[in-house]
Amino acid sequence: MDKITTSIITIGDELLIGQTIDTNSAWIAQQLNAIGIWVHRRVAIGDIKEDIMEAMAKEAAVSDIVLITGGLGPTADDITKPTLCEYFNTHLVQNEVALKNVLHIFESRGLPLLQRNIDQSMVPEACTVIDNMRGTAPGMWFEKEGKIYVSMPGVPHEMQGMMENYVLPQLAQHFRTPSVVHQTLVTSGMGESFVAERLVAFETKLPAHIKLAYLPSYSLLKLRLTAFGDDKLTTAAELSILFHEMKEILLDITVTDQDIVISDVVGRLLLEKGKTMGTAESCTGGYISSAITAIPGSSAYFKGSAVTYANEMKMKLLGVKKETLEAHGAVSEATVREMLAGALKLLEVDYAIAVSGIMGPDGGTPEKPVGTVWIAVGDATKAVTVKYQLRYDRERNIQMTAVYAMNELRKLILE
Amino acid sequence: MDKITTSIITIGDELLIGQTIDTNSAWIAQQLNAIGIWVHRRVAIGDIKEDIMEAMAKEAAVSDIVLITGGLGPTADDITKPTLCEYFNTHLVQNEVALKNVLHIFESRGLPLLQRNIDQSMVPEACTVIDNMRGTAPGMWFEKEGKIYVSMPGVPHEMQGMMENYVLPQLAQHFRTPSVVHQTLVTSGMGESFVAERLVAFETKLPAHIKLAYLPSYSLLKLRLTAFGDDKLTTAAELSILFHEMKEILLDITVTDQDIVISDVVGRLLLEKGKTMGTAESCTGGYISSAITAIPGSSAYFKGSAVTYANEMKMKLLGVKKETLEAHGAVSEATVREMLAGALKLLEVDYAIAVSGIMGPDGGTPEKPVGTVWIAVGDATKAVTVKYQLRYDRERNIQMTAVYAMNELRKLILE
Repeated sequence: MDKITTSIITIGDELLIGQTIDTNSAWIAQQLNAIGIWVHRRVAIGDIKEDIMEAMAKEAAVSDIVLITGGLGPTADDITKPTLCEYFNTHLVQNEVALKNVLHIFESRGLPLLQRNIDQSMVPEACTVIDNMRGTAPGMWFEKEGKIYVSMPGVPHEMQGMMENYVLPQLAQHFRTPSVVHQTLVTSGMGESFVAERLVAFETKLPAHIKLAYLPSYSLLKLRLTAFGDDKLTTAAELSILFHEMKEILLDITVTDQDIVISDVVGRLLLEKGKTMGTAESCTGGYISSAITAIPGSSAYFKGSAVTYANEMKMKLLGVKKETLEAHGAVSEATVREMLAGALKLLEVDYAIAVSGIMGPDGGTPEKPVGTVWIAVGDATKAVTVKYQLRYDRERNIQMTAVYAMNELRKLILE
Repeated sequence: MDKITTSIITIGDELLIGQTIDTNSAWIAQQLNAIGIWVHRRVAIGDIKEDIMEAMAKEAAVSDIVLITGGLGPTADDITKPTLCEYFNTHLVQNEVALKNVLHIFESRGLPLLQRNIDQSMVPEACTVIDNMRGTAPGMWFEKEGKIYVSMPGVPHEMQGMMENYVLPQLAQHFRTPSVVHQTLVTSGMGESFVAERLVAFETKLPAHIKLAYLPSYSLLKLRLTAFGDDKLTTAAELSILFHEMKEILLDITVTDQDIVISDVVGRLLLEKGKTMGTAESCTGGYISSAITAIPGSSAYFKGSAVTYANEMKMKLLGVKKETLEAHGAVSEATVREMLAGALKLLEVDYAIAVSGIMGPDGGTPEKPVGTVWIAVGDATKAVTVKYQLRYDRERNIQMTAVYAMNELRKLILE
């Protein structure tokens, strides 16, 4: 069983100065992984000819496939395409299909065409052109000395279209790839080292072709088992037995045995029970609501939210009492209890989440420092409140609060 | 002026299978850039000894600094630390400070200590230990043959603490770095190639040490000028003149001349004018509200949102008429107009945004396909409505809608 290996090269100064976060590599890795191809190196370099040439040669020396993203586009073509020509010892020619595509896009958008847009349809003669259904820059497929090179634009949805329509099917056909199977268990409420302690005996007996990875994700912990094998069904069956064994060991702390986010876990529970939910958010400002509705089909169980950032809105929309705010403050157990009751009534839902806290960097006091947050979850008959003292920056405090709150709701629904 | 160069090596299978998006590299690059150090390569590899050894040697051959993140932690130590020992020809010893830190963390959290936690305080003898104020895994600083190597945990806030408290000050002291100055202009309403066409003469005359980058970001376009020089003040002055020249050329399409997100642009405008805002969101599910409140201090101008995912909530909270929904549907100009009016009244704000659309993947009809979205922005006296037909996936459709809506509000406020 030979492992088919890929290097991903991303071209663009914006990645090296930190202006852009590279989401393409993760997406590509997931897709390749699903067809049994392993990404073993990812390299990011700038728009510099020598660096591109060197990276291509180095990565081709250690990988079967070199996937290149970025460095294309109407203002970036000047470096990447001539470099590809030099590397593959070829020259630029006009591609009819790519030109038609450029013309069509500009016509349908009613935009005048510029020379630099027409130039986008120039491609190295040695390549097979990959159509871009979502933009003007064509993709390019090269083969040289038994290695495959693919150059694609860095715009995520353009690259994804090319991968799905052309690159992935071609690669699957070209290589006889091993089967890779994953199963993921998500746990909460126990630290990585304690979980590892529980799994010592289990891990020891894992065969060499099955690996366990610990992936902490906010307040949750993902445990991913990966198996490699020649036959997909046999490999999946073997993995399944071990996965269930691991699940038994961690049953009391299991959130889900699927690789899904917590908002999806909560949503599936609500769907299953035919119940609805909503949120009353102060410090998270709609982040929880936005996470719940990021899941397709969430309209079946999610009715709405009252984002009450100002105290007057907490009173007006949710019926929080003025006396409560004055006696306990907006960040208090009493306030989130009233927000919860208000949300259940206002949004006419079975379950609600209410949160109020101080996410920073400012706004803390000695009694209620930055990071103080109160969460309430409940339904018509019961309510649970919890307080956290978070220690991160504003963005992460908000994300952590959302995960904690959704996990509390999950537990309450299961009670 | 010698460029000080860094390679970033990230260790961890989770990056190679796409389970985790690498946000550390972007953050590190930004910080290094600010002190004049250039990241010219980023490499991601798995938890494999040979790959780590090889990557360290290769990167040290082309860079002055090798920053390594990941591969540390109570369940991951087994590979990275012994590899570091082999590479630097040293062995593990107990570090007193790191041990005290581990003991302190476990005591303060009331958790029992495990042997694998104690082992986290073992470090290669050849390194200088970097204290971890936010977790149990210590960082490590090595020097070998004139090159600097730093190994840090992959947990973002732990790594960031080490960088800020130790690594960045040490690197700034160690190298005499060139000055790097950036200025960024954000534009809207004109495609990359048309902007480039306007800037042809300007770009042609840019000196070699000043670079212009085009960075499309959702519906906006960022134009970043970067200057390198020996003296910070002279470099900044030279850049400033060119930046203002560029701004003059693009004045009619300029969103902001600062490198800030659109929610921050809107927030600063509101602050300046002493006005307030709120949102009424259907398809974005609180995403716009969450983007606005992600900005520290947003409570000064943001009062709240009604996330009305269900039609009954559009009626109940925002006063959308039943007849309007029946005659035109939830995704219509008439509905967003009524949502806007309802939000202004309910939230008692000066300005509001209202959105309703079909974000996909399901829910489209022949008349209103997936991606149809109506946006309304306005105040007590005027309202502007726009319709978009988006062509992306659910996540991106939501993000695009949010940027479009906030940009429409920005234009309305400036009218």
